[in-house]
Amino acid sequence: MNQNLIVNRQILLASRPVGAPTPSNFNFTETVIPKPQQGEVLLRTVYLSLDPYMRGRMSDAESYAEPVAIGEAMVGGCVCRVEQSLNSDFEQGDWVVAFAGWQDYSLSDGSQLIKLSPEMANPSYALGILGMPGLTAYMGLLDIGQPKAGDTVVVAAATGAVGSLVGQIAKLTGCKVIGIAGGTDKCLYACETLGFDACIDHYQDDFAQQLAASCEQGIDVYFENVGGKVFDAVMPLLNPAARVPVCGLISQYNATHLPEGPDRLSALMALLLIKRIKMQGFIVFDDYGHRYGEFFSAMQQWLAQGRLIYKEDKVEGLANAVPAFIGLLQGENFGKLVVRVGPDHLA
Amino acid sequence: MNQNLIVNRQILLASRPVGAPTPSNFNFTETVIPKPQQGEVLLRTVYLSLDPYMRGRMSDAESYAEPVAIGEAMVGGCVCRVEQSLNSDFEQGDWVVAFAGWQDYSLSDGSQLIKLSPEMANPSYALGILGMPGLTAYMGLLDIGQPKAGDTVVVAAATGAVGSLVGQIAKLTGCKVIGIAGGTDKCLYACETLGFDACIDHYQDDFAQQLAASCEQGIDVYFENVGGKVFDAVMPLLNPAARVPVCGLISQYNATHLPEGPDRLSALMALLLIKRIKMQGFIVFDDYGHRYGEFFSAMQQWLAQGRLIYKEDKVEGLANAVPAFIGLLQGENFGKLVVRVGPDHLA
Repeated sequence: MNQNLIVNRQILLASRPVGAPTPSNFNFTETVIPKPQQGEVLLRTVYLSLDPYMRGRMSDAESYAEPVAIGEAMVGGCVCRVEQSLNSDFEQGDWVVAFAGWQDYSLSDGSQLIKLSPEMANPSYALGILGMPGLTAYMGLLDIGQPKAGDTVVVAAATGAVGSLVGQIAKLTGCKVIGIAGGTDKCLYACETLGFDACIDHYQDDFAQQLAASCEQGIDVYFENVGGKVFDAVMPLLNPAARVPVCGLISQYNATHLPEGPDRLSALMALLLIKRIKMQGFIVFDDYGHRYGEFFSAMQQWLAQGRLIYKEDKVEGLANAVPAFIGLLQGENFGKLVVRVGPDHLA
Repeated sequence: MNQNLIVNRQILLASRPVGAPTPSNFNFTETVIPKPQQGEVLLRTVYLSLDPYMRGRMSDAESYAEPVAIGEAMVGGCVCRVEQSLNSDFEQGDWVVAFAGWQDYSLSDGSQLIKLSPEMANPSYALGILGMPGLTAYMGLLDIGQPKAGDTVVVAAATGAVGSLVGQIAKLTGCKVIGIAGGTDKCLYACETLGFDACIDHYQDDFAQQLAASCEQGIDVYFENVGGKVFDAVMPLLNPAARVPVCGLISQYNATHLPEGPDRLSALMALLLIKRIKMQGFIVFDDYGHRYGEFFSAMQQWLAQGRLIYKEDKVEGLANAVPAFIGLLQGENFGKLVVRVGPDHLA
């Protein structure tokens, strides 16, 4: 069944995954379309963003945000249209960004909505290059990474929503950019289309050696999205005074236990000490939400000037959100993953 | 034999320690007093500073500085007097800070010397509160730690040269300060003399529980000097957006291998990510040498106002440098460790 005017399709969290999520962790249901009260708007989801952080919300381990409760709709950023408005700030037909979740319809009091220009050519870009992943790349690289012209910047998940922008912004800053990605196609794309200086395939047996050979001058900024064996290969190459923004650790999200020893925690701390390295985690809206305007105008200008390439991996239909999300955690997407949940206009 | 005008007593690195240094790693010798060339000064060591970083210089593992070569004099910061000057910038009798090493006499071309005021009441303070350890405490806490009034600051090695200043500066900033030290006497001193809000004895079996109980509001700044089980107890208490200046890891300096697993490297990175924590190593003169003047005037003023307490652990005689240094790595010193190598005036 496609999106319609009669029911609200939802994907609920059915159970907490142990290791990689499976389809049985999700429950596809239909419910009534909610009715807005005075001051509220009824939103219809057009695009749903799928992002690695959602794996964390499926678990009840301590994290920076509350987990999704069992039986509740999965959370997520969406581009929506206002279908009905009882709020004077919004009109029917407005395009907005909302944290509306994996469902067709939701209510909002308007306080957390970002209104989009009706002229926006690609409203789904508000979930990527001009939204949370874009802000993540921009602030993580520029504010924490502090790249200088001539620095060597290494970025993992190099063709992903965040990594592809990190690398391109680093190139605009005058850096040498080495990507890390999974597979030949992604590596070719990073070099030929995104303009990275090199991109190393982490599936290759001699990945660590290839990375070292590409970073003859060491690494000044490592933008961490992945962790695991990718970080292991990066560690010995970090230069004195290197900066490591810790944005994500996708290789670890499905892990059920820590790896075997020895325990390298103290080795990492000794590396930070000896090489005067800064390693800093960040949660983009908590740390940088107040600088969204600065980011938006810079990115929009680069985009308009054709200085940034942006690739979406668009999946059709809410039902495909589940396999697409499971694949995202395995690196199967190519570009920013968004789900087309409904049409621009629903007759 | 005491310091004299005839020979240059030296303590050389005889062999590289495996684990904790022993007296056999050092070699006490006598050699001729070097003669200055034009442009040089002959320095006589009055005080020698003993500091944990020296353990690193005894090893040939990769670090931020070259190791001491076997058969060469151990390196170290000293307060010296100019005994003979062929450099127009210095006069006989001048007090200077020099990286003169574990020996009575050394030469300098003047370029790395810091001249001290002849009125300085305690020239040895230039090796502690007004020197490298003071600058380390000041910049590590204020520039990397960024404490705000009301924050909870935890400092390990709380009565040491650096830790005692970190805690006192944090108190001057309006923070709640919890020290960690080895033994009842040090903990009493931290609370009663230095004015810390609490100090936990890491020799107690329930150390981690006591630390947690003292940090009801979590930890906003942890000044890392120690590592090991002290950091293990700190980790779960770190607040979102906490800052961890990594200044030293004294508990690890004598380690010969990594601890047993599991491998918690990824757990530390996940903690940084989830809690948006900044962890940053620094090497004080590389990172902050250019801000020495700013530090010196602030510290001198606090000291003159009686707002900072400073305790030295003074050892008499160059020959005692070896046991004192071995003890330093076991936490046996109480206050800043300095060796009185020679008298103010050598007749």
